[in-house]
Amino acid sequence: MKYALLSVWDKTGIIPLAQALNDNGYTILSSGGTAKILKEAGLDVTEVSEYTSAPEMMDGRVKTLHPKIHGGLLGRRGKDDAVMEENGIGPIDILAVNLYPFEEMSGKDLPLDELIEYIDIGGPAMIRAAAKNFKDVAVVIEPADYKKIIESLGKEGLTYDDRKILAAKVFTRMAAYDGAISNYLNSEGSAVPTSYTVQFKNGRELRYGENPHQKAAVFGNTGIAGQLPLQGKAMSYNNYLDTDAATGLLREFDETAAVIVKHNNPCGVATGETLIEAYLKARDVDPVSAYGGIVALNREVGADVAEELASTFIEVVIAPSYTEEALEIMKRKENMRVLILPEENEKEELRTIDGGALLQRTPKIVQETWEVVSDRDPTPDEIDAMKFAMKICKHTKSNAIIFADKNSALGIGAGQMNRVNSAEIAVKKANFPLKGSVVASDAFLPFADTLEAVAEAGATALIQPGGSIRDQEVIDAANRLDVAMIFTGIRYFRH
Amino acid sequence: MKYALLSVWDKTGIIPLAQALNDNGYTILSSGGTAKILKEAGLDVTEVSEYTSAPEMMDGRVKTLHPKIHGGLLGRRGKDDAVMEENGIGPIDILAVNLYPFEEMSGKDLPLDELIEYIDIGGPAMIRAAAKNFKDVAVVIEPADYKKIIESLGKEGLTYDDRKILAAKVFTRMAAYDGAISNYLNSEGSAVPTSYTVQFKNGRELRYGENPHQKAAVFGNTGIAGQLPLQGKAMSYNNYLDTDAATGLLREFDETAAVIVKHNNPCGVATGETLIEAYLKARDVDPVSAYGGIVALNREVGADVAEELASTFIEVVIAPSYTEEALEIMKRKENMRVLILPEENEKEELRTIDGGALLQRTPKIVQETWEVVSDRDPTPDEIDAMKFAMKICKHTKSNAIIFADKNSALGIGAGQMNRVNSAEIAVKKANFPLKGSVVASDAFLPFADTLEAVAEAGATALIQPGGSIRDQEVIDAANRLDVAMIFTGIRYFRH
Repeated sequence: MKYALLSVWDKTGIIPLAQALNDNGYTILSSGGTAKILKEAGLDVTEVSEYTSAPEMMDGRVKTLHPKIHGGLLGRRGKDDAVMEENGIGPIDILAVNLYPFEEMSGKDLPLDELIEYIDIGGPAMIRAAAKNFKDVAVVIEPADYKKIIESLGKEGLTYDDRKILAAKVFTRMAAYDGAISNYLNSEGSAVPTSYTVQFKNGRELRYGENPHQKAAVFGNTGIAGQLPLQGKAMSYNNYLDTDAATGLLREFDETAAVIVKHNNPCGVATGETLIEAYLKARDVDPVSAYGGIVALNREVGADVAEELASTFIEVVIAPSYTEEALEIMKRKENMRVLILPEENEKEELRTIDGGALLQRTPKIVQETWEVVSDRDPTPDEIDAMKFAMKICKHTKSNAIIFADKNSALGIGAGQMNRVNSAEIAVKKANFPLKGSVVASDAFLPFADTLEAVAEAGATALIQPGGSIRDQEVIDAANRLDVAMIFTGIRYFRH
Repeated sequence: MKYALLSVWDKTGIIPLAQALNDNGYTILSSGGTAKILKEAGLDVTEVSEYTSAPEMMDGRVKTLHPKIHGGLLGRRGKDDAVMEENGIGPIDILAVNLYPFEEMSGKDLPLDELIEYIDIGGPAMIRAAAKNFKDVAVVIEPADYKKIIESLGKEGLTYDDRKILAAKVFTRMAAYDGAISNYLNSEGSAVPTSYTVQFKNGRELRYGENPHQKAAVFGNTGIAGQLPLQGKAMSYNNYLDTDAATGLLREFDETAAVIVKHNNPCGVATGETLIEAYLKARDVDPVSAYGGIVALNREVGADVAEELASTFIEVVIAPSYTEEALEIMKRKENMRVLILPEENEKEELRTIDGGALLQRTPKIVQETWEVVSDRDPTPDEIDAMKFAMKICKHTKSNAIIFADKNSALGIGAGQMNRVNSAEIAVKKANFPLKGSVVASDAFLPFADTLEAVAEAGATALIQPGGSIRDQEVIDAANRLDVAMIFTGIRYFRH
């Protein structure tokens, strides 16, 4: 006698699997809802309670937790045969189980005593037992893997390696499942779980990390992390990081926009009537830095943009789509990585530090809190330019000072340890005239010096969070220099 | 009859627990090694196999996987009493289990078929069952929690909330345990696990994240993440991040050293004969940026350094120890956070990106690969200064250009999108004469322009990875300008 045990919450594909098992001489053990639909499909099923001679109890809390089931899953074929025979334990060679949907139900605001019924006990016990004994038992927890089982029946069966892969999936699934229960129970009544478990999927080794002597990997099925280039070299660690930064800024724009990132900072940003107009303007913001950069675009790339991309050295280009002609043109630069812009994922930012990790929600742009604090109101063009500049500011490493007009960055001062330095860099690097420009600052101006410096460079309006004890000095300076100034109340540090 | 089941790998504290249970009228169920040591201690123990009338099988693979055990753990008191009675199932109110040490054994290079015996099946099944039924059952998996059980005996017992906390620990432990098995099985034969599970402990909510409108948390028991200030305000998200950066750089030095960080970049670094000498020199590198900075020191802080720290605005100071007098002085700045420098943790760096995460090993400073490529050999002082400068370079955001002598940073150019800008910033910001200084660059110089700029500013030697297609042009320029140059072959991008 050979046995297969089927016990699934998600019934997808279970009938064909059971049919194939029946056809190949397996005795199917099952219970509850699974047994019911298999019998209705006319299949031969032995109830677990009948097989174990122990009743199903406590509304199903105890049914498979029995030595005849677990001995059948854990018995080492060849070694434990005698004890199995002696105790009437048949070998269960195939186990198909999926779990009560705790994760899904935990999002539904159920009271805890109801939610707790979705913590599966019997299923995990069986799949962990079968996975430990993968040398002899095939355990399948995803309907997508049933096909592999069906195809192996009547032949030599699955290989050792096949069964080992299925076993690994069990422990991965259990870590996520119990991680979700743990995160839930550890969050109840507090904003932060005392223990936090996360699981990342689809791991791929990278050639190296930020630097060639660092081993590295990327994880993820979706978003930037899940992207494989349509053409070009494999994505590097820095490519992923910079493409994530470029895409983050690009997603602030609904209008046609181009973003160029280098070393995780924007070095060119522009909008335009057409994509080519936006891209050329973005590139002109800082042409030296744009060389070897990451280009993110939010409209279909046609031949005109493709020609420009192929005319220089670009590490990565990402856009929602490309015309056939554009793809053909970009092939001339065979190393250039070409990616499709994916859907954005809701995300929390996690990063490790010595001994642990920091976790935070991603920031959002809020405009409802903006308040004019200068005597002069900003003009509509100045307001548009401030909106534009603040988006860039949010995605630039602190301290950040951004000069912009209403559709292009003009000068970007990034990553400095004091604010005046950032302003000076932005002025010095500006490739366009700054007369009539506006300025955004990621955090408040501690003194009037930065305002005076940017006004001197030609800025007529400035947007900043405010909140310095010297705000009044800064407001006085703005009024004296006829600079329109908005306080947002919202800081955008980025490190 | 009331039952307690004890089954532990780690026998710490199990005898006093069993003694207290015996004294309070519990029937102790146990098996294997646990039963043996309890009997040897003269305690009353009922073997699980005797209680279930089912033999222990398969070298212990199957012993507790039985309806009498799991019914006793899962039965809802008041609701399932009849079915329990009918099936001879006694209520198991207390369960003490700890698991086979898979994590520890997986580091010992055992063959898989031996290692697999350390995957616990019976223990997880029981603790998960008891945790689901925490309303009625107390499950304890850490010897440190036995005391709570012992103290509750003979009184009203544990509260609902106590039992719930114990239950949460079960799922947290199981997520880590199965995460470790998953990571192991998913890594076999490949450098990267296909699925990667991580768990962070000791979660605490932070007031906010990088910015006030972002919710945030910190996790960790050890290292920087585990630190609580001896005095001062609570640590903020940015404090943790910057303290981690400051400590990372500080740990490059064995000699007496001081590091000041602002916005995740060093703005002052120096060594000295004494800590006060090192700190004052570090502060003078960029006094404007040092204001409001994070100060990391690697020697005991005495009254002299404490006076200087208390004379200005410092967000965080971290050092291995403080004299009583120093602690007294620092109390004058009641907001200044004072931390103890912890042991360093081996670490991998994980950070999320859209849809997934990047993982890499931390970089290490390697000097064996350094090679003089200029006609002139660097002097011993230049070599010392280059070693010093390269340490700073590694911890500065890219592109980084560092001017230094052999015990102080002189000018720091950080976080720029092109290299010449970083050099210009370093020169412009230098608070000390650059004549006779050396320069470190985190990545190769693509052109001779950066070398020419730093030589013009007074540098006599330069260290960089090399590897540009124009290396020869850069070497020629070095020789022409009598600059000694070393190629390291090793890049230090940091983003």
